[in-house]
Amino acid sequence: MQKYFSSDDIMAMEKQLRVHFINSIGGFKSVSLIGTVDKNGKTNLAVFSSLVHIGANPALVALIFRPSPPERNTLNNLLETGFYTVNHINETIYKEAHQTSARYDAAISEFDETGLTPIYKNDFKAPFVGESLVQIGIEFREKIDIQINGTIMVIGEIVQVYFPENCLSNDGFLDLEKANTITCSGLDSYHITQRLDRLSYAKPNLEITSILSDYF
Amino acid sequence: MQKYFSSDDIMAMEKQLRVHFINSIGGFKSVSLIGTVDKNGKTNLAVFSSLVHIGANPALVALIFRPSPPERNTLNNLLETGFYTVNHINETIYKEAHQTSARYDAAISEFDETGLTPIYKNDFKAPFVGESLVQIGIEFREKIDIQINGTIMVIGEIVQVYFPENCLSNDGFLDLEKANTITCSGLDSYHITQRLDRLSYAKPNLEITSILSDYF
Repeated sequence: MQKYFSSDDIMAMEKQLRVHFINSIGGFKSVSLIGTVDKNGKTNLAVFSSLVHIGANPALVALIFRPSPPERNTLNNLLETGFYTVNHINETIYKEAHQTSARYDAAISEFDETGLTPIYKNDFKAPFVGESLVQIGIEFREKIDIQINGTIMVIGEIVQVYFPENCLSNDGFLDLEKANTITCSGLDSYHITQRLDRLSYAKPNLEITSILSDYF
Repeated sequence: MQKYFSSDDIMAMEKQLRVHFINSIGGFKSVSLIGTVDKNGKTNLAVFSSLVHIGANPALVALIFRPSPPERNTLNNLLETGFYTVNHINETIYKEAHQTSARYDAAISEFDETGLTPIYKNDFKAPFVGESLVQIGIEFREKIDIQINGTIMVIGEIVQVYFPENCLSNDGFLDLEKANTITCSGLDSYHITQRLDRLSYAKPNLEITSILSDYF
């Protein structure tokens, strides 16, 4: 049976029910760990599920921040240094990733609390997560205040990427399933995936076909 | 072996390789069909993978639009009428969903071309996709021009939701796997999911536990 909620039904929901419902209704999400460091060298790590693709030339992604802790530490750090990392989550670290959503004091590093390993490399000014198989270094580009609810969109440019060599297909597609990257839904549900297919570029009046991936 | 791409490596990639690479590097994505209609009643349907959660009170989601066809028809329509629908994609319709990304003329409805069924209900001013199990009616709220690359973010409020009754858990979480919703990666890869776990609300110095979902 199909159930219907109107706008009034949604607004009448108890607050935590609505938070779970609206956070899950939009579909599966990218979920990753954002690594930052403040000017004194104190690291921070936080799980985010709001990463969205903005463009490929230049290579841009956005994140949405609520105007409250614990996301405030990540935001302060990346504005202070201009750099942050996006680290994919795999099956071996998703509990540690989830634990970073606890409201730790700014003086405490989620790396220390979870045992995840901060890695610095190629002169990048923010820590990567050693246990992540796909690691992305981002340089801050633009901050947009979203008037309607006080959230903040941060846009950054991808300036470093690390990934397992055997996951890159010869058309540029990165096979996330092969890289053990997982997805999430709602606030707390984590999922592995199973590919149905890759489909050819769609054109009017042309049947789409499967793409057989070849890897470098 | 871990492979490293610098900013220069990324910018030196052949254009289509970079498009595939950057579209896949950000992780798994929400993928859904956006239904609209123009003032003359001509419907449009387009697959989007840029939906992102903005807030639960009010219930807001955003989509990113490139300033070019075929997304232009969707954008024009939703600005003209103020309404659009987000329809989840399941295993039975993902090929039809992908086909909507072909560059059809504005005079052609992707509903007609793919055989997907436009449904109007509860006086909502845009068509839902009959074959989708999760359908969301959205009212346009805010348009933000992203200066850095000319893309456009559209924010809307969730004002109607339809979903399979047995997918709603008693804490408000909507079980997308139970609703057969799929996810995507890159421009053309579609995936079903398998839940690892739901995890309890994280607090400092408290071990996280599994949430056993009870359904209404």
